[in-house]
Amino acid sequence: MDSVQSVELEVPQKKGVNITKPRVWLKNEVVRVGLAESLCTYVMMVFGLGSVAQVVTGQGAFGQYLSINLGFGLGVAMGVHVGGTVSGAHMNAAVSFTMCTFGRLAWKMLPVYVCSQLLGSFLAAGTIYGVYYEAIHDYCGGNLTVTGVKATAGIFATYPAPYLSLLAGFIDQVIGTAMLLLCLMALSDQKNKPAAMGSEPIAVGLLVLLIGISLGSNSSYAINPTRDIAPRVFTAIAGWGADVFRSGNGWWWVPLVAPPIGGVLGGGLYKALVEMHHQTLPEQGQGKNEKLEDESIPLEKLKNICADVCV
Amino acid sequence: MDSVQSVELEVPQKKGVNITKPRVWLKNEVVRVGLAESLCTYVMMVFGLGSVAQVVTGQGAFGQYLSINLGFGLGVAMGVHVGGTVSGAHMNAAVSFTMCTFGRLAWKMLPVYVCSQLLGSFLAAGTIYGVYYEAIHDYCGGNLTVTGVKATAGIFATYPAPYLSLLAGFIDQVIGTAMLLLCLMALSDQKNKPAAMGSEPIAVGLLVLLIGISLGSNSSYAINPTRDIAPRVFTAIAGWGADVFRSGNGWWWVPLVAPPIGGVLGGGLYKALVEMHHQTLPEQGQGKNEKLEDESIPLEKLKNICADVCV
Amino acid sequence: MDSVQSVELEVPQKKGVNITKPRVWLKNEVVRVGLAESLCTYVMMVFGLGSVAQVVTGQGAFGQYLSINLGFGLGVAMGVHVGGTVSGAHMNAAVSFTMCTFGRLAWKMLPVYVCSQLLGSFLAAGTIYGVYYEAIHDYCGGNLTVTGVKATAGIFATYPAPYLSLLAGFIDQVIGTAMLLLCLMALSDQKNKPAAMGSEPIAVGLLVLLIGISLGSNSSYAINPTRDIAPRVFTAIAGWGADVFRSGNGWWWVPLVAPPIGGVLGGGLYKALVEMHHQTLPEQGQGKNEKLEDESIPLEKLKNICADVCV
Amino acid sequence: MDSVQSVELEVPQKKGVNITKPRVWLKNEVVRVGLAESLCTYVMMVFGLGSVAQVVTGQGAFGQYLSINLGFGLGVAMGVHVGGTVSGAHMNAAVSFTMCTFGRLAWKMLPVYVCSQLLGSFLAAGTIYGVYYEAIHDYCGGNLTVTGVKATAGIFATYPAPYLSLLAGFIDQVIGTAMLLLCLMALSDQKNKPAAMGSEPIAVGLLVLLIGISLGSNSSYAINPTRDIAPRVFTAIAGWGADVFRSGNGWWWVPLVAPPIGGVLGGGLYKALVEMHHQTLPEQGQGKNEKLEDESIPLEKLKNICADVCV
Repeated sequence: MDSVQSVELEVPQKKGVNITKPRVWLKNEVVRVGLAESLCTYVMMVFGLGSVAQVVTGQGAFGQYLSINLGFGLGVAMGVHVGGTVSGAHMNAAVSFTMCTFGRLAWKMLPVYVCSQLLGSFLAAGTIYGVYYEAIHDYCGGNLTVTGVKATAGIFATYPAPYLSLLAGFIDQVIGTAMLLLCLMALSDQKNKPAAMGSEPIAVGLLVLLIGISLGSNSSYAINPTRDIAPRVFTAIAGWGADVFRSGNGWWWVPLVAPPIGGVLGGGLYKALVEMHHQTLPEQGQGKNEKLEDESIPLEKLKNICADVCV
Repeated sequence: MDSVQSVELEVPQKKGVNITKPRVWLKNEVVRVGLAESLCTYVMMVFGLGSVAQVVTGQGAFGQYLSINLGFGLGVAMGVHVGGTVSGAHMNAAVSFTMCTFGRLAWKMLPVYVCSQLLGSFLAAGTIYGVYYEAIHDYCGGNLTVTGVKATAGIFATYPAPYLSLLAGFIDQVIGTAMLLLCLMALSDQKNKPAAMGSEPIAVGLLVLLIGISLGSNSSYAINPTRDIAPRVFTAIAGWGADVFRSGNGWWWVPLVAPPIGGVLGGGLYKALVEMHHQTLPEQGQGKNEKLEDESIPLEKLKNICADVCV
Repeated sequence: MDSVQSVELEVPQKKGVNITKPRVWLKNEVVRVGLAESLCTYVMMVFGLGSVAQVVTGQGAFGQYLSINLGFGLGVAMGVHVGGTVSGAHMNAAVSFTMCTFGRLAWKMLPVYVCSQLLGSFLAAGTIYGVYYEAIHDYCGGNLTVTGVKATAGIFATYPAPYLSLLAGFIDQVIGTAMLLLCLMALSDQKNKPAAMGSEPIAVGLLVLLIGISLGSNSSYAINPTRDIAPRVFTAIAGWGADVFRSGNGWWWVPLVAPPIGGVLGGGLYKALVEMHHQTLPEQGQGKNEKLEDESIPLEKLKNICADVCV
Repeated sequence: MDSVQSVELEVPQKKGVNITKPRVWLKNEVVRVGLAESLCTYVMMVFGLGSVAQVVTGQGAFGQYLSINLGFGLGVAMGVHVGGTVSGAHMNAAVSFTMCTFGRLAWKMLPVYVCSQLLGSFLAAGTIYGVYYEAIHDYCGGNLTVTGVKATAGIFATYPAPYLSLLAGFIDQVIGTAMLLLCLMALSDQKNKPAAMGSEPIAVGLLVLLIGISLGSNSSYAINPTRDIAPRVFTAIAGWGADVFRSGNGWWWVPLVAPPIGGVLGGGLYKALVEMHHQTLPEQGQGKNEKLEDESIPLEKLKNICADVCV
């Protein structure tokens, strides 16, 4: 959900090149980032919601619970390829919020990310409803319900298991998102053992698959405010009605509030226990980026080096 | 289905070296590309159709729906290894068509690709019928049918679910192929977050696996005209008869017409929302290839650089 | 479970730089390594135990045996990313013990590793009990038992199959851990075919997944003393009582004693049959590290080379 | 099953360095290669047979058919890591035979490979019988049979499906092994789209997984003489008796004879349709190795280059 390289939009403004036209540049950048973030969230959600629709309407003949884990996991991987280096492919307001908290994203970009994610997520819900319209109506006999044997609202938004209290569900969402951000921090920590260059999308995808396998049965692992609320609103409009907000003892606000808290908690835990203790070598300056440049030698750098020493 | 590096056959003809013998060179190139495209399509289809045959005739003892997703997904990955840099391993007329539309393949090469794919796909259907001849006849008691409890035509070509209308099936195929091409464009966009060098085959394979998991239950995700029509013709000849064209309210033309439309739609969407907005740095020239050369320094380039600065 | 690069803590003390302040340095290093080892064990165990909890309490609706294999396999992969180059991410006392035996870890660091692993493992058991508290009590009706139809102690620690004798279980654990260490040695042997640079976490994760698939049904493949005893103690305290030690004919000591023996056996087998026979080239000096530096050229080395030859 | 880099044992003898002591060197080399080939075959077979034992004796509670595919697939991957660059990790007499046919292995090394594979395979069968001794006897009530509801001989060697004739089984094994070698050739063809450097083991493992998913239900995809005959002999001795040779209408010789034929067929097909048509550039000399050296610049080469141009 985090492209591992988050965009730091304040940095370019500090550079002399952009000083003369910051407003235009920012507007373009917002459009550019917003479009990419919308598209990658859309891709992730079409694959994720599609896998749930297939399992629910297929009644076991077209995949099982593991298919859903794979659908969201690989969907996230494809989303990271699509959003990639343009927006960072957060696809998750809890990730964006945590990035802002730890200074990896400008706070003023947060609304851009959240709105783009909501848009992509809403359109994906519409797409999946369109693709599986006949399958859903054939399955439930045209009776769109949130609870019951033939309930179909769970294709779009998450609902808690019958035994789950709101408090336990809140803890479940905090811990699920904490594990997500803790591991995302590790996957992008260049001074530790990060995901291999170019394999970040699949590494992040496997992480989401893993959370589904191990922390998913309580409340279907939303761990993502924007993934959950936009399809919920869609279902409210599309025919499931206000039950999508009433169901589960008013569950709908939990995936909005708990994940950002969990994200900061998990990310902070990794920072406190591992990242803070990395030994800084005096000559490494800004750490991460410097080190990366050390390892791969771009053509121009090489020219300069040769020029420096030879001449 | 796309080897990520599509062959651009017009380029060599523009180079001086080939000017003197374009006709011979083209003929050889057509044979070379055609053979590779046939073989990789054959490999993909043997693995894909084999996985369906095993699930159908094994009645659950030798794999489930997920096996079929894995069979086609990993089959595509192996096909990309086989066709590789020779033909680009499209293995899908919708991919070839989209590549032509976006100028990545010469239009005159399209018939070569389509015919090679049809040939490979047809031979694979024959191979799988040979390998599973006794299994299929043991399963259905020698009664080769397209519909019914012991139907076996679905091993070779795709058929829609009973609830699916032709219109909904058309939309299903458009959207499935659109997601395929959208993500293929991202996987090969060197200015974004492409598949890591050398891992393209497995990335494309996981994408096809993902489409099977999330967009497969309506009509068995053909998303590929050549994958579908050649085995359908084979079954018509081999004993299933004209029902393979009549079944599903005359379904057979949908996987031929919808995928190319979806492919251009999905590829265009990625181009419009992401690729067009990449900031072109003035010194990057032709973009993609230039950048790649920047990152890996071939021996000869290095010599020249050193020579340039040192001497 | 082994980060493939084990920390060799005696080496820095031999270097002149650290001679003046070895005690302070060591204390800091112990804290640094201990925190990372605790956190990565915690991460691995939360994902692993979570996947078991989900399968047991979900009664088949939220995953099957394969989910547990994936949970521990990918959990180990994420743990290696988290512990990474700081502690080496052993997460397993049998791995630490084998590393000490073969001189890849100082013996005095063994207690630090074991205690950190016990702490992480215990806290993970607590976390999973918290997250699945309502699910577990809903499943077993509040009756926490070690044996019987609704037994839940197996979520946390391992218990043998009914048919298994203590001797056979001991052999099972010796061979399981031997296969683990044999393959870990191969995955990190730079003179053979090691895991690709950066892909070590997923390679080790697939190895653990594989052991679960092939050597797991006898006694749930603990192959790890610290993974097993800490959650067992937790369940003894949390309400399952002394049965967790009595069950399986007093099984609890087997996962403590057998894995270290198996680890040394398997690691030794690889060394005796493969590693010892590598042909040492005279100019390679210390082998592994030298060779690695040859392949990637850091910026400073390049400067020196250019300076050496040019000036 | 093929480490992608097969050892070419005749080459060193041609070099001046080894001329003085070829006999001693060869003897050592035979021991070195034989030990590695035995160990990697052992590792592959322990994981593979273990996964079958678990599925059979677990009666569905510890994995399904897919587990067996994963067990052999990932087992092959680990075997390639273990045998690696020492023996090439064929682990399959059909692979060794094909390599000899295409001149990638000296014919006089074939007996060394086959004997090592037989030894490793036999010991693995013994190990798995030891580990699952109580499970197998608990499952079948101490009655070791080759056919029937509680048959257990299929844990060790392959047997055809009831419907399969010997001729169809022969074709099944020829085609299965042909697909294996065809794809192995592609995975190691440096002029096409080979497996990424370092990812060969997992690529080969996925290929074997894929064959199990798509070409496995007829006769359990032996596609390997040494994998099949050694465990069959073991079971004949260990208590299953002569039925292991009588069963399936005398099936035992098919996995011995068909795979080498299939291997040469598949490898030859790839060579004829793809490899032979690669355009050789005049300056590339020996092709593969030359090209590889171009891409990664070793330290010493760099020194020489700089020295050449600067001085």
